[in-house]
Amino acid sequence: MKKKKKNVNAAILIIGNEILSGRTQDKNIAFLSSWLNHNCGIIVSEVRIIPDVEKIIIKNIRFLSKQFNYVFTTGGIGPTHDDITAHSIAKAFKVKYGFHKEAYKILENYYGKAAFNDGRKKMAKMPLVAKLIYNPSSAAPGFKTKNVFSLPGVPSILNSMIENCKKYLVKGLKVHSVTININTVESNISKQLDVIQKKYKDSVDIGSYPFFRLGKIGVSVVSRSTSKIDLAKVKKDLINEFKSKKIKILKI
Amino acid sequence: MKKKKKNVNAAILIIGNEILSGRTQDKNIAFLSSWLNHNCGIIVSEVRIIPDVEKIIIKNIRFLSKQFNYVFTTGGIGPTHDDITAHSIAKAFKVKYGFHKEAYKILENYYGKAAFNDGRKKMAKMPLVAKLIYNPSSAAPGFKTKNVFSLPGVPSILNSMIENCKKYLVKGLKVHSVTININTVESNISKQLDVIQKKYKDSVDIGSYPFFRLGKIGVSVVSRSTSKIDLAKVKKDLINEFKSKKIKILKI
Repeated sequence: MKKKKKNVNAAILIIGNEILSGRTQDKNIAFLSSWLNHNCGIIVSEVRIIPDVEKIIIKNIRFLSKQFNYVFTTGGIGPTHDDITAHSIAKAFKVKYGFHKEAYKILENYYGKAAFNDGRKKMAKMPLVAKLIYNPSSAAPGFKTKNVFSLPGVPSILNSMIENCKKYLVKGLKVHSVTININTVESNISKQLDVIQKKYKDSVDIGSYPFFRLGKIGVSVVSRSTSKIDLAKVKKDLINEFKSKKIKILKI
Repeated sequence: MKKKKKNVNAAILIIGNEILSGRTQDKNIAFLSSWLNHNCGIIVSEVRIIPDVEKIIIKNIRFLSKQFNYVFTTGGIGPTHDDITAHSIAKAFKVKYGFHKEAYKILENYYGKAAFNDGRKKMAKMPLVAKLIYNPSSAAPGFKTKNVFSLPGVPSILNSMIENCKKYLVKGLKVHSVTININTVESNISKQLDVIQKKYKDSVDIGSYPFFRLGKIGVSVVSRSTSKIDLAKVKKDLINEFKSKKIKILKI
C-alpha cells in the first residue's frame, strides 16, 4: 500500500437487478465501507445501486470515476448473459475489450482445458488494460481499470479478494471514532450536541442515532475525526455535558 | 391508492453518514424495494446513499425527483443537528420551511405541552406545502413534498408508517416473478439462458444468481415480467432446457 495522503475518498457502485427488486439483501456496502474506512483510511462518499443496463452502467462509471479517487463496483462479472460489467467499463473508458491473457491462463489452469467452456471463458473477457485482482476462493479474478475496481457480487467471494486490492490503493488518513451510548432520547440532548458540533465543525463530525434494543431506549452519539486530539476534546465535552444533565452513560 | 398505470418507477435516497461509514447495516433498501414492488407495482430503478450534507442532498433531490415518478428518502428527520433532510428538501424545491401546523399539533398532543421542548418541536418543521405521512409508532410524521416521500431512518418506525404512503401513490403494473433453483453452476447454462433471454428480450428479464447454502452449490434463475403469459412461456422453455441437459431442478 502506498503513502498516506489526506482525504482519500471512494464511491461504491452496486450493479444488480436482484438488489433493486428487494429479492436480495445487500451485504457488500457495509463490508466495503467498513473495510475501506478501517484498513485504508478511505472514506466512502457515495453509494449507488443500479440495474444491469449497459448505458446506465457506462454513465455512472464515467461520472463516479471523475468525481471520486476510487470506484468499487460489485456484481455482473460472472459467466451469464446478465453479466455485463466488464464490457460496459471498457465502453465507458473507450478501451479494448477481449480475452485478458493472464486471466485466461488462471481460469484455464483452474478448470482444466476440457471443462473450460464458453461460459467460463467469458470470465476472462475484460478491458485489456486491466490489472487483475486475484480471487483465492473461486479463481475468476476481479480487475482494476483506471481507478475502478470491479469485484463480484457474492459476498463471501468478494470478502476473500478484498485484501488483493490494497496494493493498488493510496492510503488516506485514518478516521477515528468514539461512540458514547446514553440512556436518554435525542430531543433531550439536541441543543447541547448542536453547540458542541458547531465548536468543532471543521474537524469533527458528530452523529446521533436513537436505538431500541433489549427493551432499552437510548442514543448512540458517534464522533468521527482524523484528529485524535480534537476527538478527545469532543469526548470530554460530551461527557461533561451528559453528566451535568444527569444523563446515564451506558457505554463508551 | 389510485388507478393502475404502466411502468411506474421510483428512486430511494438513503441519507446518513452511519450507512456510508459501514457502522450501520442498511435494512431500508430491501424493505422499501420489496414493498413498492409487491404492493404497488412500482419498480425501484436507482438507489443512492449520500452523506448528511445540505448541498449534496439538494442536488440529489432535484435530480432524482425529475428523473423518476417517486423518490423515497430515509433518515435525517429527527430532532438533532444532523437531521437536515426537511430543510434541504424545502431548499431543493424553493418552498417555505417552518412549523407545519398539523405536524405541530400531532407532536404537541403526543408529548404534552410541558415536555414539548425545542428538539421535539424541530420535528414539526418541514416544507409548509408538505402532506403528512402518519407515524403510528412514535408520532413524528413523515412527509410528502411534490413527488418526494421523506421517512425516518429507524427501520421499525419506517416499516410501521409505510402503508400510509399508499394513498398518495399511483399503482404500476405488478411485476410477477418465477424462480427456478437448479443444481448446476452458471457456466453450464449461460449459453441457453442467453438464447431464451434474447427470445423474450422485450417482455421478460432473466437473472442468474449462484448460491452456496447448506453445503449445496446451485443457481437461482429468476425471471420477471409484467406479463404472466410470457413469464409462463419462459418458465416452460427453461424447464425443457434444464431437463434436456439433465440438470436437476431443486425448487420452483
